[in-house]
Amino acid sequence: MNKVKREIPEEVRGNNKLFAGVNTDCKVVQRAAPKVRPIKLGEEKLVASIEEVINKLNLCDNMTISFHHHFREGDYIINLVMDAIAKKGIKNLTIAPSSLTNVHAPLVHHIKTGVITNMTTSGLRGELGEAISNGVMKEPVRLRSHGGRARAIEAGDIKIDVAFLGVPSTDLYGNANGVKGKTICGSLGYAQMDAKYADQVVLLTDTILPYPNTPISIAQTDVDYIVKLDKIGDSEGIGIGATRFTTNPKELQIAELVKEVITKSVYFKNGFSFQTGTGGAALAVTRFLAEEMKNNSIKASFALGGITKPMLTLLEENLVDTILDVQDFDKEAAISLGQQERQIEISASYYADPHNKGAAVNQLDVVILSALEVDNQFNVNVMTGSDGVLRGAIGGHCDAANAKMTIISAPLVRGRIPTIVDRVNTVITPGESVDVIVTEIGIAINPKRRDLIASLSDQGIPIFTIDALQEKAYEITGTPKPIEYEDKVVALVEYRDGTLIDKVLQVKQ
Amino acid sequence: MNKVKREIPEEVRGNNKLFAGVNTDCKVVQRAAPKVRPIKLGEEKLVASIEEVINKLNLCDNMTISFHHHFREGDYIINLVMDAIAKKGIKNLTIAPSSLTNVHAPLVHHIKTGVITNMTTSGLRGELGEAISNGVMKEPVRLRSHGGRARAIEAGDIKIDVAFLGVPSTDLYGNANGVKGKTICGSLGYAQMDAKYADQVVLLTDTILPYPNTPISIAQTDVDYIVKLDKIGDSEGIGIGATRFTTNPKELQIAELVKEVITKSVYFKNGFSFQTGTGGAALAVTRFLAEEMKNNSIKASFALGGITKPMLTLLEENLVDTILDVQDFDKEAAISLGQQERQIEISASYYADPHNKGAAVNQLDVVILSALEVDNQFNVNVMTGSDGVLRGAIGGHCDAANAKMTIISAPLVRGRIPTIVDRVNTVITPGESVDVIVTEIGIAINPKRRDLIASLSDQGIPIFTIDALQEKAYEITGTPKPIEYEDKVVALVEYRDGTLIDKVLQVKQ
Repeated sequence: MNKVKREIPEEVRGNNKLFAGVNTDCKVVQRAAPKVRPIKLGEEKLVASIEEVINKLNLCDNMTISFHHHFREGDYIINLVMDAIAKKGIKNLTIAPSSLTNVHAPLVHHIKTGVITNMTTSGLRGELGEAISNGVMKEPVRLRSHGGRARAIEAGDIKIDVAFLGVPSTDLYGNANGVKGKTICGSLGYAQMDAKYADQVVLLTDTILPYPNTPISIAQTDVDYIVKLDKIGDSEGIGIGATRFTTNPKELQIAELVKEVITKSVYFKNGFSFQTGTGGAALAVTRFLAEEMKNNSIKASFALGGITKPMLTLLEENLVDTILDVQDFDKEAAISLGQQERQIEISASYYADPHNKGAAVNQLDVVILSALEVDNQFNVNVMTGSDGVLRGAIGGHCDAANAKMTIISAPLVRGRIPTIVDRVNTVITPGESVDVIVTEIGIAINPKRRDLIASLSDQGIPIFTIDALQEKAYEITGTPKPIEYEDKVVALVEYRDGTLIDKVLQVKQ
Repeated sequence: MNKVKREIPEEVRGNNKLFAGVNTDCKVVQRAAPKVRPIKLGEEKLVASIEEVINKLNLCDNMTISFHHHFREGDYIINLVMDAIAKKGIKNLTIAPSSLTNVHAPLVHHIKTGVITNMTTSGLRGELGEAISNGVMKEPVRLRSHGGRARAIEAGDIKIDVAFLGVPSTDLYGNANGVKGKTICGSLGYAQMDAKYADQVVLLTDTILPYPNTPISIAQTDVDYIVKLDKIGDSEGIGIGATRFTTNPKELQIAELVKEVITKSVYFKNGFSFQTGTGGAALAVTRFLAEEMKNNSIKASFALGGITKPMLTLLEENLVDTILDVQDFDKEAAISLGQQERQIEISASYYADPHNKGAAVNQLDVVILSALEVDNQFNVNVMTGSDGVLRGAIGGHCDAANAKMTIISAPLVRGRIPTIVDRVNTVITPGESVDVIVTEIGIAINPKRRDLIASLSDQGIPIFTIDALQEKAYEITGTPKPIEYEDKVVALVEYRDGTLIDKVLQVKQ
């Protein structure tokens, strides 16, 4: 039993400690470092095909390979590379992408044939999530946040033999960025980790530009090989599921209440900072917040996180001074990164690694995060559905929950399913770091935040206890039937510091 | 005896191999990595004084500390920090600055009192160079090029316990750059190595700006402490000795001939790249080259190295597409780095590390370098004077000599001292990597470059053998008397790959 009262069976724990709270002591960490093969003077890096580069890499059984997910639902790279690897007959690989999306369903086949036997990722969705929830993998998947992955790479917990990185443009020596080229994705913040720490780094691109290609998001000094493909992805796929402009009255109501909580808090003042994230309600919050900032002549110092078009508007209108950009969630934000000098690309470590000398999330005043479920301990689940199936992504959720005020926005119910429950299926972000839950009918404040309860009371915001919100949800939906699970652990959830916070079990058919 | 016929006594060699040629095989290198103390949420980094930060660091005897030399003759940091350390009674330190200049004469005292007992640097000048040449240190100083230092840090040959880095501006979380603030220095390319690889990193600044301070040359994720001082240096000191605008007829003649060699070579074509460096003749070359580029509608892809105002003119006139900037040699270049988006800050590793996956020097077509002496094996000395005393700096000399055409510009004689000699006092750059020597009376081409001999003949450029140039020099000066040395080795010269290329002996009083 760990601090959020989850049991993690000893036989799957490995060397990991159990989650013991969000701010446990951390001693000095010895960083990991790659093995580097120096490139000789005159040596060229361009290789004719994925097949040929696999040969050059001496890629073999039991290695760990990695990818990034900056193309999200528009990614072609992972499937192309895995197909080529499978054809070579290589088996027992660990894959360590920064995340996986619906388009990666073909990986199920590679799991079944033994090409992939271990996996760490932030997200699992669609057919892949279902297959894993149904026990297709022998070993549990390791689920990590973006900050947690950065930490794991820097500590050597993830040791990448080969990183296959899709890049919108590169020169022939490996200076790459995400803002030029046929298929742009903007920030390469997650991929920067792989480029720095993998022993061997392959860039895959559809646009080769003259030397030196700038800005230099990934540097020639870290790149072994370059493969030119016809097309590395689809920029339109970046925004799928993230950048919906909502007209849903319930979502607008939630966004309105979130705005109220922020603007009536002590944090809403000149120089404040925030992360709003993606999804219909979050984007509406950004718009509403902009209005209030204008009305009150308040300017933010910085905005953080996955960047979307509404955030750019704030930058252009000078309502925010700087955007720190680890990932772009639409093509407009990706284009803007190449043009706006106050939109700064940052790495996943800079964004959220809890074990470096100070991540950007440490400086956050306000963060708005979403939830699939919240329980009456304020624990949040963004990973498994009400049927227990893997269909989400940790992303930067538990990382950004470090903010001075962490707001979870969620509808009370979704159809016949309660969002506020007595026990979340899967704890991703511990209630200890969550401050306010905002639903369409009102908010609940974590009792340990007496300061917030005091300052937000009598301000016209309907405040409930979390138990009251849960009861109201159950009044609508009835008490949900418990999900039936098998005994097999299909995934382990790491908190950002590398401790185990929860497990995911195989669902009963 | 190594490949340039220098004897390195076995008792001072340590683990280093002897120089065996410029392009020897290099196997896979295991990179080093720092020990990192994670910064806790809410922890602050500002410390009241150097004295206080020394306590916090647990700085003690036998540690290795480092500095950068971006302020060159305008640096206040090294003396301030060393004085404070000396007062604490700490002894037996190794100092590993990227270089040292005339202003660091006070270090002699700290050597005499046993505070400093080991040293690695690129340059030694003035009183400090003289004292070391006269045997003040027990252990030989290790002289490294900028690329060699980057390599040594990345390989763990230099293990930095604490880096004390002067930065023109930082925010309170450690995002620092050299382009904003009271005392700007431009690129922090050398310091970036220390920030990434030192266990503990202290920033010293005279300008603290709001969070987040951008551009982010040194990142908050690598910074432990920040100390605010009244003044960290003098920006005017950056250019001393580097940015002289020459009217000396001999220098102009050399510059004219260098220009001829470049423009009449096969390398002078659209998209070529070059490094011209500093000093009167080199700056004149840049001006003359600009003229020819205009006349011939030739545009360079990139210029590299220490950046000066004449280089900026090329950028502004669109004669060069991109400047890769590891160091700025005048205030104008430093200012420009903050304004010109095609002037790109690069690290010392990116600039010149021979053991990464491809340094910028590998891409150079033409480089113009200076010399104190050149011998008839084309070996170059930029470190010791004609009296054998340390009074120079390796800088990027042997690194940039990797270019397709390496030109050494030097007067035949300096007063009564020949520049072209039969044996240089100290080999810094091996003749193997040197292609053309340009003097005021004509040039000599390395016999192994038959292609250059063929293409530059009958073009109106006076070509001599190197022996003929040496004879002409000796005709003017007479045969120089050999320098008298003691047996003690006062410095060892590492070639960029870490092999030992020469030693420097104590001079006889």
